Amino acid sequence: MVKKQSATLVGQVDPEVLAYTAGRDVILDRELIEADCLGTAAHVVMLGRLRLKPPLLTVAEAAQVVAALRQLVTAARAGQFQIELADQDVHLAIERALTAQLGELGKRVHTGRSRNDQVALALRLWAKMQLTAVVREQADLAGVLLKLARRTARWVMVGRTHMQPAMPSSLGLWAGAHAESLMDDLGGLLQVYDLNDQSPLGAAAGYGVPLPLNRELVSNLLGFGRPPGNVLYAVTARGKIEAALLMALTQTMLSVSRLAADLVLFSMPEFGYVLWPRTLGTGSSIMPQKNNPDVCELARAKAARVCGELNTVLGVVRGLPGGYQRDVQETKEPVMRGMAETRATLRVLTRVLPDLTFDRAALARGFTPAVFATDAALERVAGGMPFREAYQQVKEQLATVGAGNPEDALAARVSRGAPGNLALEDLTARLSAARAWVRDEERALGKALRGWWGPYEPARALPLSS
Amino acid sequence: MVKKQSATLVGQVDPEVLAYTAGRDVILDRELIEADCLGTAAHVVMLGRLRLKPPLLTVAEAAQVVAALRQLVTAARAGQFQIELADQDVHLAIERALTAQLGELGKRVHTGRSRNDQVALALRLWAKMQLTAVVREQADLAGVLLKLARRTARWVMVGRTHMQPAMPSSLGLWAGAHAESLMDDLGGLLQVYDLNDQSPLGAAAGYGVPLPLNRELVSNLLGFGRPPGNVLYAVTARGKIEAALLMALTQTMLSVSRLAADLVLFSMPEFGYVLWPRTLGTGSSIMPQKNNPDVCELARAKAARVCGELNTVLGVVRGLPGGYQRDVQETKEPVMRGMAETRATLRVLTRVLPDLTFDRAALARGFTPAVFATDAALERVAGGMPFREAYQQVKEQLATVGAGNPEDALAARVSRGAPGNLALEDLTARLSAARAWVRDEERALGKALRGWWGPYEPARALPLSS
Amino acid sequence: MVKKQSATLVGQVDPEVLAYTAGRDVILDRELIEADCLGTAAHVVMLGRLRLKPPLLTVAEAAQVVAALRQLVTAARAGQFQIELADQDVHLAIERALTAQLGELGKRVHTGRSRNDQVALALRLWAKMQLTAVVREQADLAGVLLKLARRTARWVMVGRTHMQPAMPSSLGLWAGAHAESLMDDLGGLLQVYDLNDQSPLGAAAGYGVPLPLNRELVSNLLGFGRPPGNVLYAVTARGKIEAALLMALTQTMLSVSRLAADLVLFSMPEFGYVLWPRTLGTGSSIMPQKNNPDVCELARAKAARVCGELNTVLGVVRGLPGGYQRDVQETKEPVMRGMAETRATLRVLTRVLPDLTFDRAALARGFTPAVFATDAALERVAGGMPFREAYQQVKEQLATVGAGNPEDALAARVSRGAPGNLALEDLTARLSAARAWVRDEERALGKALRGWWGPYEPARALPLSS
Amino acid sequence: MVKKQSATLVGQVDPEVLAYTAGRDVILDRELIEADCLGTAAHVVMLGRLRLKPPLLTVAEAAQVVAALRQLVTAARAGQFQIELADQDVHLAIERALTAQLGELGKRVHTGRSRNDQVALALRLWAKMQLTAVVREQADLAGVLLKLARRTARWVMVGRTHMQPAMPSSLGLWAGAHAESLMDDLGGLLQVYDLNDQSPLGAAAGYGVPLPLNRELVSNLLGFGRPPGNVLYAVTARGKIEAALLMALTQTMLSVSRLAADLVLFSMPEFGYVLWPRTLGTGSSIMPQKNNPDVCELARAKAARVCGELNTVLGVVRGLPGGYQRDVQETKEPVMRGMAETRATLRVLTRVLPDLTFDRAALARGFTPAVFATDAALERVAGGMPFREAYQQVKEQLATVGAGNPEDALAARVSRGAPGNLALEDLTARLSAARAWVRDEERALGKALRGWWGPYEPARALPLSS
Repeated sequence: MVKKQSATLVGQVDPEVLAYTAGRDVILDRELIEADCLGTAAHVVMLGRLRLKPPLLTVAEAAQVVAALRQLVTAARAGQFQIELADQDVHLAIERALTAQLGELGKRVHTGRSRNDQVALALRLWAKMQLTAVVREQADLAGVLLKLARRTARWVMVGRTHMQPAMPSSLGLWAGAHAESLMDDLGGLLQVYDLNDQSPLGAAAGYGVPLPLNRELVSNLLGFGRPPGNVLYAVTARGKIEAALLMALTQTMLSVSRLAADLVLFSMPEFGYVLWPRTLGTGSSIMPQKNNPDVCELARAKAARVCGELNTVLGVVRGLPGGYQRDVQETKEPVMRGMAETRATLRVLTRVLPDLTFDRAALARGFTPAVFATDAALERVAGGMPFREAYQQVKEQLATVGAGNPEDALAARVSRGAPGNLALEDLTARLSAARAWVRDEERALGKALRGWWGPYEPARALPLSS
Repeated sequence: MVKKQSATLVGQVDPEVLAYTAGRDVILDRELIEADCLGTAAHVVMLGRLRLKPPLLTVAEAAQVVAALRQLVTAARAGQFQIELADQDVHLAIERALTAQLGELGKRVHTGRSRNDQVALALRLWAKMQLTAVVREQADLAGVLLKLARRTARWVMVGRTHMQPAMPSSLGLWAGAHAESLMDDLGGLLQVYDLNDQSPLGAAAGYGVPLPLNRELVSNLLGFGRPPGNVLYAVTARGKIEAALLMALTQTMLSVSRLAADLVLFSMPEFGYVLWPRTLGTGSSIMPQKNNPDVCELARAKAARVCGELNTVLGVVRGLPGGYQRDVQETKEPVMRGMAETRATLRVLTRVLPDLTFDRAALARGFTPAVFATDAALERVAGGMPFREAYQQVKEQLATVGAGNPEDALAARVSRGAPGNLALEDLTARLSAARAWVRDEERALGKALRGWWGPYEPARALPLSS
Repeated sequence: MVKKQSATLVGQVDPEVLAYTAGRDVILDRELIEADCLGTAAHVVMLGRLRLKPPLLTVAEAAQVVAALRQLVTAARAGQFQIELADQDVHLAIERALTAQLGELGKRVHTGRSRNDQVALALRLWAKMQLTAVVREQADLAGVLLKLARRTARWVMVGRTHMQPAMPSSLGLWAGAHAESLMDDLGGLLQVYDLNDQSPLGAAAGYGVPLPLNRELVSNLLGFGRPPGNVLYAVTARGKIEAALLMALTQTMLSVSRLAADLVLFSMPEFGYVLWPRTLGTGSSIMPQKNNPDVCELARAKAARVCGELNTVLGVVRGLPGGYQRDVQETKEPVMRGMAETRATLRVLTRVLPDLTFDRAALARGFTPAVFATDAALERVAGGMPFREAYQQVKEQLATVGAGNPEDALAARVSRGAPGNLALEDLTARLSAARAWVRDEERALGKALRGWWGPYEPARALPLSS
Repeated sequence: MVKKQSATLVGQVDPEVLAYTAGRDVILDRELIEADCLGTAAHVVMLGRLRLKPPLLTVAEAAQVVAALRQLVTAARAGQFQIELADQDVHLAIERALTAQLGELGKRVHTGRSRNDQVALALRLWAKMQLTAVVREQADLAGVLLKLARRTARWVMVGRTHMQPAMPSSLGLWAGAHAESLMDDLGGLLQVYDLNDQSPLGAAAGYGVPLPLNRELVSNLLGFGRPPGNVLYAVTARGKIEAALLMALTQTMLSVSRLAADLVLFSMPEFGYVLWPRTLGTGSSIMPQKNNPDVCELARAKAARVCGELNTVLGVVRGLPGGYQRDVQETKEPVMRGMAETRATLRVLTRVLPDLTFDRAALARGFTPAVFATDAALERVAGGMPFREAYQQVKEQLATVGAGNPEDALAARVSRGAPGNLALEDLTARLSAARAWVRDEERALGKALRGWWGPYEPARALPLSS
């Protein structure tokens, strides 16, 4: 019977057409089960509070639906809720399940909704929870780097430009630079969090419905921070928000890819800066001696992948004429995959980095006199010679430049942010702020839900891994 | 015991690192089981024919391995072969299975191979088979369009530029243009087929091995058309060939996306050119009247996706320093997904297009006099007036241009390829040639394998759908 | 003599190598002349205030350099300052000019700087000024749409999904949706403004220098909002910030591309929603009747271009190992071009949109009964029938659904943001806030510069158009 | 007067709209002057041969126009032909010039043409000439690498995977791999050459004209290899062919980027494989000791750029509904820029590579015993031990593996394409074939033009550099 109900929507659709249009949603939508249950619950609670005669739903009926949805979430976590091809997607699967359990009442839950606003809501709720998770994980990786920076602030190493030896530097400067890059990237994530923090429910297919739906109430029940806006934009923003989210993740992955690229280089025996434990490296099927930094290579490649996912979304969205179009369905997998790859990469690097051994002696090698050429020129400048002349003189007499003392050279670089003055307290404060933000937002969401849904704890798993 | 063997490679790897580095291969590599079995079989046959003392493998032992691999292919088709996380990938899973069945003999199959050349071989064999399949399916869609062009060569419709009415045209011209675009795209697919048509086996990790492996023999056993080349390039070409393949698929999807965009437009009631049967359209969860051309919208979006997959691969490959790097692993899913999406799109449009109704009367509407403005100017030119003057005169007297006869206007466009002279025989001949090419290549592969492996028929399913 | 000085850096470089490495900077760097002059001026003012013995530069000498730089800015605006190939870039061109005018003093201006931090500074200052300009222009376009939304809040039109008629809607809803999209995009621009709002000067080649440079002072002189950070990151953030900027611009262009796509569609005679004045359309070289909405087509295409520029930058940055690498030079043109295209597109649409005529009667056409099918179902729901049953009933009796009254249908959509309740006051407030932000930031920059440089007014021209 | 004529097309267009729609064509179209002159000439010759009464143009008049166009080409090469904003593009600029010189006759040259087919023709002719040039230049770089491979076939170096030492290898293998990659890329260029080798003229705006234009004649006069096809496709293929061209160039740039990445690495003092002459390196403005491989860094970055240009074009083309749309104009700069960057990169590397010194002694360093671990395992295999056991044994006893002799290790790798058997004769033959192809195609074009236009030699300059 349930299937028959659901089948009324799928109707007599050609099986090839159904497979093409719905196919992968059956897998991807597992990711959205909880968000869709919460959204549906908030919607019926709101319906229940509308004072219409006859009521669309009574308060008691709404509570019944909410209870059923709570059970459904539990069932889903236990792997006992399936989305079938005939359902097309999570939305009809849930409506089917509710109708199977609650009968006629189940047929009322879609009142005033379209799948267009429903999926938009599920995606925004999903993104809201994922974003706090990724911010936490990114802060964790930044924290590892910051700790490394503190510990190695005085470990000298040759700074490079164009991969060639440039000037005296330190491992601490290197670690601090990567930490700051990740901290800066948090700004983008927070901006997307804000952009995303808006309930589309009540938009229906993008044109509202002739019912006095209380969009603000639904928004509040679900803990959204911004008031609901234009109903057409609420629907057409799908894809655009996915693009924004992938942009922020891309920035994170760009930072990570550069960290990874450095680590691959540092692990080459010609440098020997980093010793890679066997348990964290990967062997070869043919070469018995191998212990490769595959984690870093994959991190680098997954950055390319997240860029690719972003590109897909940009391509889908660009030039799309107004109103909902099915094209945006193809933004779902990219954003989920992009989130999953970014979070997995942040986690694995946070796992690996503290266990790598940085070889202080190896880092100290390679301080040829040429590395001190700029210092030599600036010594002449300190004596009064114009810089360009000093530069020219040293250039012509390069062979006579003597080796300097790397520690002294560090110590002389006293400007804010320079090797002798890393100013890490700033990053430490920003890290604390980021972590406080995560706590506050998660608490706010918990609080919003507690009053009517009960305690809700987002699942900790990576997306697409359940 | 088997697991212990396989575990020696995975060794004591940290579980998070293992999950990050191997995770999705467990799923994706299902796609490569058959190609890897064939490659392994050809490799051992070659090993068996080397006249070394002691032999690496006897001819009889090689036959034993081939038989076991044949069984393994059968088991895999029946869904009875699993790749486990501890295997990391299909290659070690197969080695494990062979060792479980054949004991010590199984431990000999990897002699002279690395997973680097092994996976490269599997991918090239996979691509070889996929490419003939996609060429066939693309020819099928071109064939549907060509048939439509023949049937509607005289069905007048308004030709547009900038979406605005431009000149008299025909539905046949429109269908013929899309057919020719797809035919031209076949050129790219055939070029990639050739690029890909080379066996990497014997390259090992990219530097060969100190064994007199007969690379030409393996190449011939597997039906590759080009002789084996530089062993380093054999391995580093991974990613590059994936990029080339996705480029060719992208061209196909660009063509398809434009066809789809036209069909979406033609299906709007304001045009009414195309009537969409209920069984091929998709409804709405809220609006009872809906029958949407989702198939075309998704085809358009999947074109964006294939571009995104291409981007991922370009990003991975670009600037990668020499020798195998794990980054290229991230080119596997994009190429498989790109192939699957393209083939699914070609198939569904081939399914849908013949069942759409083109409304000849609706097409004939909209022939306002303005559509004949150019004809009016050229009439003046025929009378001796310079074109630019005629153009100017008509422009100034637009209101006086009378409506022409669309059929006559078509008939007057007699140049090769113009509405009055579609020259479809050319496309028909190219279509036959494409189909003959598919048959020839499939036969050649079958013939190469028959002699030592036995009859082999590639699976007909789409990639990633098994 | 000047050339000889500059030539010492270029030295004996092979002409082909010089042309390849420096070539287009000679053109692109024109864009950076003013920012580089300001940066150099702030640097020498700071040098002048360091209490070293002997001084690197006296306060008086610093003032002399600042005066020369002020003249140089004036000369550049008058088109009288050239960057030559032998200079390689704007930085050496300015050093050459200063040395030509000030002699030995000119040779002191590069003390403690590398071109790496110098170009980073110039780019951040350039971006700072460009960002306020683009925010203003984007607010202008949003303002035009908002005005249109207010004026046409009750102009009924058929709302569409999948391009097919869906539900009653209004032109005001449509205009409001586009306005809100652009308003949301401002968030991204402001976030990048913040990310970019940091002075890299003092970082030199990314490792600082053994001089007590006062980075905070330079930062304050130039009006940057965030304190200077890690010197290595100050240099490696180049490319990353360009990516962030192009991401924000891409969001803007995505929004614009969808607006443009709608306008192209609305201008087709089959719809006739928009009448395009001859002066804003484009003709054909062969068809006298033509008046095409090329502006919109190009806006759509330029969105693709800005995405392409973003891709270039992502590709350059991803996986780049640490420390300055010349690769990032290739991020300069993309960001300049992306900014120029976006600003030009915003401007031209702001110019065109108010002059388009929306045809209220044409908009009101096309309200077939089917458009009211959802309303019919919800009427049944209001009577107590479960929605899914009502939906099914209407679906089966579609032919009996009567035409509704579009105005009434709008009026019944009373939820916040729905056609009957556009809630535009929210957007109006956000628009005012955006404009106030622009004024505040421009004033703050003016104020920071006034104290030591004098009055400074950024040029109003689009980038790359001087 | 001339301007007035041209102005009739531009008409009363709003200056902002004109600047937005035509702006950069004024610069870019310089690139197309010669191709457009040739195309116009062929068109009028064809018009002259049509036996209509009255004639559209007499044979003598056609000759007069051809003569004027020949002069115009000469003037353009001397920098004496300008495209003005009022012209919008090269096509109207040439029509204006002809009308200025020939009066009424000039007003006849556009008979039967639209700018749509005219620009398509110009682009195809431009691409045809550029493609032979880039093939020649790519063959040159491959030739340099091939020569290096021959010379250094026995120079031992450590082969790497994952950047870690893997197995014994040679510089010759490395150079041969890069050469083969470039040779393979030629296949893509030749395929695009074929795709592009078709005259669109006679298509007009995509729907033909009611005149008996002889499209085959024009095609033959201009030396195109494929017969003219569907007129709608002739116009809509614009953008698609640009994409195909950029795809082929992207493959070239991917290959080049990997070569460049290797050279940057090899130039680090820790390796010291490559010594970079001062004249080919680039200095620093602050560090006197610097000599950086900027050429390689930029080559790597320009690969990202060409990918970006490809992305722009893919974005423009994807989903564009049928018939000419102005969007495709935005594919012009990407293809020109992509071609220019690729050719410049090929040239500069061909210039630089032969002057780099490879240090044979440095290459020979780093042969630790671990590099011979696989050889040690395979020795055990040769003695009869199963490979997996031998592998395991060596892995457990790594410390006891002794250093091998690199030369012997190379010599033992005898399979085709392995370090001991590079099989370069194959590449040599392919290189000769590529060069012969260039000669043949250039001769064929010259021959086609000679009969009616006279001797024509394509300019040798890079695109966009005139």
